[in-house]
Amino acid sequence: MHNDPAPPHRYEALAAKLTGMVDAGILKVGMKAPSLRAVSEQNRVSLSTAIQAYRVLEDRGILEAKPKSGFYIARGAEPTREGPSSSSPPSRPSPVAVSTGVAEILEHAANPDYAPLGCAIPSARILDAQALDRHLARCARTLGREYNIYTDPRGDIDLRQQISERGLRLGQGLAPDTIVVTCGCTEALAVALTATTRPGDTVAIESPTYFGLLQVLEARGLKALELPTHPTKGIDLERLRKAVETGRVAACLLSSSFNNPLGCLMSEESKLAIIDLLSRHNVPLIEDDIYGDIYFGPSRPLPFAALAPDADILTCSSFSKTVAPGYRIGWISSSGRFKAILEAKFASSLCGPALPQKAMADFLRTGGYDKHLRRIRRHFADNISRMSQAIDRSFPAATRLSSPQGGFVLWLELPEGFDCAELYRRAIAERICFAPGWLFSASAQYANCLRLSCGHEWSPALERSVERLGALAHELLEA
Amino acid sequence: MHNDPAPPHRYEALAAKLTGMVDAGILKVGMKAPSLRAVSEQNRVSLSTAIQAYRVLEDRGILEAKPKSGFYIARGAEPTREGPSSSSPPSRPSPVAVSTGVAEILEHAANPDYAPLGCAIPSARILDAQALDRHLARCARTLGREYNIYTDPRGDIDLRQQISERGLRLGQGLAPDTIVVTCGCTEALAVALTATTRPGDTVAIESPTYFGLLQVLEARGLKALELPTHPTKGIDLERLRKAVETGRVAACLLSSSFNNPLGCLMSEESKLAIIDLLSRHNVPLIEDDIYGDIYFGPSRPLPFAALAPDADILTCSSFSKTVAPGYRIGWISSSGRFKAILEAKFASSLCGPALPQKAMADFLRTGGYDKHLRRIRRHFADNISRMSQAIDRSFPAATRLSSPQGGFVLWLELPEGFDCAELYRRAIAERICFAPGWLFSASAQYANCLRLSCGHEWSPALERSVERLGALAHELLEA
Repeated sequence: MHNDPAPPHRYEALAAKLTGMVDAGILKVGMKAPSLRAVSEQNRVSLSTAIQAYRVLEDRGILEAKPKSGFYIARGAEPTREGPSSSSPPSRPSPVAVSTGVAEILEHAANPDYAPLGCAIPSARILDAQALDRHLARCARTLGREYNIYTDPRGDIDLRQQISERGLRLGQGLAPDTIVVTCGCTEALAVALTATTRPGDTVAIESPTYFGLLQVLEARGLKALELPTHPTKGIDLERLRKAVETGRVAACLLSSSFNNPLGCLMSEESKLAIIDLLSRHNVPLIEDDIYGDIYFGPSRPLPFAALAPDADILTCSSFSKTVAPGYRIGWISSSGRFKAILEAKFASSLCGPALPQKAMADFLRTGGYDKHLRRIRRHFADNISRMSQAIDRSFPAATRLSSPQGGFVLWLELPEGFDCAELYRRAIAERICFAPGWLFSASAQYANCLRLSCGHEWSPALERSVERLGALAHELLEA
Repeated sequence: MHNDPAPPHRYEALAAKLTGMVDAGILKVGMKAPSLRAVSEQNRVSLSTAIQAYRVLEDRGILEAKPKSGFYIARGAEPTREGPSSSSPPSRPSPVAVSTGVAEILEHAANPDYAPLGCAIPSARILDAQALDRHLARCARTLGREYNIYTDPRGDIDLRQQISERGLRLGQGLAPDTIVVTCGCTEALAVALTATTRPGDTVAIESPTYFGLLQVLEARGLKALELPTHPTKGIDLERLRKAVETGRVAACLLSSSFNNPLGCLMSEESKLAIIDLLSRHNVPLIEDDIYGDIYFGPSRPLPFAALAPDADILTCSSFSKTVAPGYRIGWISSSGRFKAILEAKFASSLCGPALPQKAMADFLRTGGYDKHLRRIRRHFADNISRMSQAIDRSFPAATRLSSPQGGFVLWLELPEGFDCAELYRRAIAERICFAPGWLFSASAQYANCLRLSCGHEWSPALERSVERLGALAHELLEA
């Protein structure tokens, strides 16, 4: 059931070469790209290799296809900002108490009068998920009476079948009966923690990490052991080893790929080392794969569970970032803890709504989801690129910036001592919302950092908001 | 904001008189009832009083209206079985561990091949909620793109407005902004407990009580203090007083009306005394009002919160028992704990699906829900009556039976020593599912009791299942 890491491909080498030409300014934004035939001949590769390379460059937002005209250079060299520093949170577990702060931010983030840089939510306009809505309308018309029941507590069987089939493509051989559909990834994580920990336990997590996850820990009375995390390579394995060897880590909870807020991607080698370490110490791994389908590289990174199908891994994910935040459909799967998961789901919300699950199953079954994913990956890569450039233009020179390999958020690190809480107050006064860094830690780290969401369509207004935020940062830094 | 208890009405006296004539066999099942004019003249009451009395008798399933023909006697005298004894659970808190047993029962209960006496779920056929489905289809067609977002974490504002307006009719002056929409009543109860307790705390509850509630306590590491509960009058106030005076009760969780499984209804006097007691000891009251709209008496009993709007009460309810188990829409409201509730909701599932909430709001706004409630109340009252008669005919003479004043479940108590676990094994072998009594206690009480659900349409097959269950009980008792 295990996919070996893909060997390096010719088309990747070609894509890298062309990217280099863009970075060097040989190919400039707006220029027509060489024709596929010309590229194939000049580089002595087959036409199909050239096509694959162009597809990759399109996915990354570097090329843009124009109907009946060919390919154009869509964006220039990435800014060469230094990445954020590796984090160094305290080595002892912290009790979690972020909820009060989060509630305030979410109130601003939900307000449509504010520039939407705060919440990591894809805009409904980019998602354009009306095909799914048509399935829901049809299901409501034709199946309403039959489906006005409590579903199997695991969720609609057709949906679990579809999720199982998508997992199989990644080498995850999960039977539909070991999948439990949840109310978004939040409930999946909450259920996973209820199934593996007791109140007062310590959970090892990435740092910085998604504040919603900290809230889930807080509500369960769990302590967070924050691990040092590199902005592209992920957690510090040595620190995890030390923590696990104390015997006081009840579970480890990591992003499978593209941790929110850093966008980092651990290598398969690191993932396997983590699985091995945790297995030897009987520590369950909860993985959050919610951003896995939004990759900018050539192929979808594998979740931990696909690398080690028999390990004690609970995989959580959802459709909220890729197609349907409004449907609240997530899931959790695990080969060995099904009973505890199901009990935790009963105690959390019994079961989920029937018709939206059925509609999602129909949407997946009738195809079109992969095409949809290709489109939104391109869109998010483009947003990330444009926002990175706007940040590069407008933020203080000392600002460090993440280079996410997937997802749609950026993490900015300003010099030590910079006060993002004050930046937040000034920005809110000008109706610009963002997520201040301290939200992403259980131990009050990252006061000089912030997260910007690239989930909305790029627009002059959004660009002005980023530039204004940069100007405010200048003011504060120079005050 | 407080409705005084209704004064006794003339139509109630008339309804009671006519019920007496049915009980006495003067009016027999199938007979035409006296005309409204005749009743009005014979009893010296106005025609409108006679109409109201007949409506009450219709709601209770005693009369049935036939188009163009008048009223008929629909059911005869209730069996005069003795009610179950008052419970006497241990006076010390118990840790809760029912989940394993519950999972097994739910698997059988969800299987359509088994006679559906196990789960307290109304059948989709009785609910006949296609008007609601039409609203959902319309919302999905016209609002899909706009609503493909995370809602306000409190839920759709139109739905909260509708819930608020229904609350007002009962004297509950809850602003829409203090209501949080949840994934059914289960999530509402889970959120209420997270907002008021910490793991290890003790919660005072009715006994017997709904096993789903015990699972919610178990998942949070809470202890249950089971209170002696009278089958029609509710909990023993003196025992609650003693428990609260120890200072070790973190919260009290009670049914507002028609406790599952007993169907008991506390008087307003008792409710006020409970509120007073808890307020004096600063113990929050969580009330579960999920069955409140399914009353068989002349008027809807008031939730605790309507009797004391300023007290520390968290009201939980849902639409699952009355119109839409498949939609999973519940809510929680509280005047003073909004912040903690919202934080607990974030950590439980962030927010709920947007379109089903909007459809429910439209369904409530456009009317028809009250007519729907009248219809299903009548249906459930009739089911309870028919099942009570079938039990009376077929169960051992020593079987005691509840007389629920609302809801759609019956509680049977067999002689001390009777083994309902064995009855369950034998029944399951014959594809009959019911809920054995031990599920309803944290301290292994009620091994001689069982709950039968009357949520499905009465049918010869269902009747045979009840009779067969009675025969199995005879066999076991006489063995």
